[in-house]
Amino acid sequence: MIKTILLKNRPEGKPSLSDFEFVIEDSNLKISEGEILLETIYVSVDPYLRGRMRDAKSYIPQFELNKPIQSGVIAKVLESKNEKFAVGDFVSGMLSWKTKQVSTGEGLIKVDGSKAPLSAYLGVLGMTGLTAYLGLNEIGKPVTGETLVVSGAAGAVGSVVGQIGKILGLRVVGIAGTDEKIEMLKTKFGFDAGINYNTSKNLVADLAKAAPNGVDLYFDNVGGPISDAVLFNINTFARLIICGAISVYNNTELPKSVSVQPFLIKNSALMQGFIVFNYAEKFPDAMKHLSGWLAEGKLTYTETIVDGFDNIPKAFIDLFEGKNKGKMIVKI
Amino acid sequence: MIKTILLKNRPEGKPSLSDFEFVIEDSNLKISEGEILLETIYVSVDPYLRGRMRDAKSYIPQFELNKPIQSGVIAKVLESKNEKFAVGDFVSGMLSWKTKQVSTGEGLIKVDGSKAPLSAYLGVLGMTGLTAYLGLNEIGKPVTGETLVVSGAAGAVGSVVGQIGKILGLRVVGIAGTDEKIEMLKTKFGFDAGINYNTSKNLVADLAKAAPNGVDLYFDNVGGPISDAVLFNINTFARLIICGAISVYNNTELPKSVSVQPFLIKNSALMQGFIVFNYAEKFPDAMKHLSGWLAEGKLTYTETIVDGFDNIPKAFIDLFEGKNKGKMIVKI
Repeated sequence: MIKTILLKNRPEGKPSLSDFEFVIEDSNLKISEGEILLETIYVSVDPYLRGRMRDAKSYIPQFELNKPIQSGVIAKVLESKNEKFAVGDFVSGMLSWKTKQVSTGEGLIKVDGSKAPLSAYLGVLGMTGLTAYLGLNEIGKPVTGETLVVSGAAGAVGSVVGQIGKILGLRVVGIAGTDEKIEMLKTKFGFDAGINYNTSKNLVADLAKAAPNGVDLYFDNVGGPISDAVLFNINTFARLIICGAISVYNNTELPKSVSVQPFLIKNSALMQGFIVFNYAEKFPDAMKHLSGWLAEGKLTYTETIVDGFDNIPKAFIDLFEGKNKGKMIVKI
Repeated sequence: MIKTILLKNRPEGKPSLSDFEFVIEDSNLKISEGEILLETIYVSVDPYLRGRMRDAKSYIPQFELNKPIQSGVIAKVLESKNEKFAVGDFVSGMLSWKTKQVSTGEGLIKVDGSKAPLSAYLGVLGMTGLTAYLGLNEIGKPVTGETLVVSGAAGAVGSVVGQIGKILGLRVVGIAGTDEKIEMLKTKFGFDAGINYNTSKNLVADLAKAAPNGVDLYFDNVGGPISDAVLFNINTFARLIICGAISVYNNTELPKSVSVQPFLIKNSALMQGFIVFNYAEKFPDAMKHLSGWLAEGKLTYTETIVDGFDNIPKAFIDLFEGKNKGKMIVKI
């Protein structure tokens, strides 16, 4: 029995369970020469998938209606007619939301569960960690002693960004939505300060207090009013890394914000959209640093692991209510 | 008799004549060792001066109330006790709005009226030309065949940006506010296409038509709704050079715009504030190109020259109604 999750409707606003359809097939999958049969072990759910559900231009192709959704997946090789993969190997790559599937192996990389837990290859040693490392370094070009503000700081990417910031000698301020998350930023991830945007009465002033020397680097996962508040605190030559805008992904109307242009002019500041796929040639170097820091205990991570294939759509929807701490993963 | 113009009030919204005060002194100016006595010949009025009239942090110091305003000036040396300057020399630099003044010569450069008209040293061979050249090249990094959109295209900076774009082999689209200006962009400055934002019924669609391959480079002098419309047309890896925001300089409330972050993410685009003073080490190289192109006839310029010292404040105010074509200069 093979279960598959299809995109049934393009969500209007916040995605709902009725936008997804489950299909069950009884057939046995057969592989041809060069192919492998995979059993899904872990599925990553990520905010950027919301963009692929739209019917609009984006940086990766849109999902088609009534076709399987894809995301980062860890799978086990059950059968192999491909000499690069042996039965029992674990692989990571962009795969469909299916319990089992056939692949040519193209775009898949083997992962080693003895070096780190398998789920880490979807997070701190996967796209999450690469996004954090390369976004901060390639666009941010951080200099020891500077101040870094991270929004969505308790999220998968944000919590890694903050820790890398500390490793690089920055003052790190995190913005998140509950006191519990703020506490975690400071005690578990070593952030210097944290601001709860849900209880702050004046985000501009609270940021000024938490970043007394101003903001040199902003790693933006959220957009919207939180990012507006950061603008009032940026320094000359600030670099704003625009990695995500989860606060507006579900908007049905075009979001409006404070005009950024006057802030960029008066501070000679830079703002750049970051997409990790553009930096593929830097992945090996980034992975070397990330796995080194992980092994040395300098980098830690949090996962929210949800059980069961049937809960993938709900886990995805919960991202937009901040129900995850760190990387949200579904264990099949 | 020496006339001086002081900043009397910090303008609220659009500046008015009552924000300026004229002072007349009868005294004779005496120079000490190392000083020169200057007679003002041309005064540059520029949109960025509006920012210096505010009581807020900016990239250059604010004007003080009841003190002379300063801007780019061409002056003639009347007396000299400084061996670097001879009587009869012409100099260019940041000087006060005074008919005569004493200077140490610091920050002044000698200009040669036999190589180009003196007023050109306030425009195409001055800050205007340097801003156009360095903004486009240092942030934009243009590649032959790309499409460049320029807002405020008939203004001093915009008209030079467009011409440099053509010299570098770009498709150049200008946005301006009258049909007469659009005609001038195409016939005098060689732009490929022009859009009148005052008569366009759908700026997003008109831009798509004028830039059929999308927008790779945007040189932004205006901000506001015009810049919002450009966002809908940018290509992957677009570079947006934020040089001015004249449309919002007089706002008394914080301007709001379409949120730029989602556009920057999905296009991996860059947006950077540009201030020419940060690139001083590149001035000599830029000047070599600008004066070379001017001599070869590849670069032309338009000036709006207003007569009389007393008209400086009015000429400045008229900038915000687009009454100038090209560089606005007051001849004393």
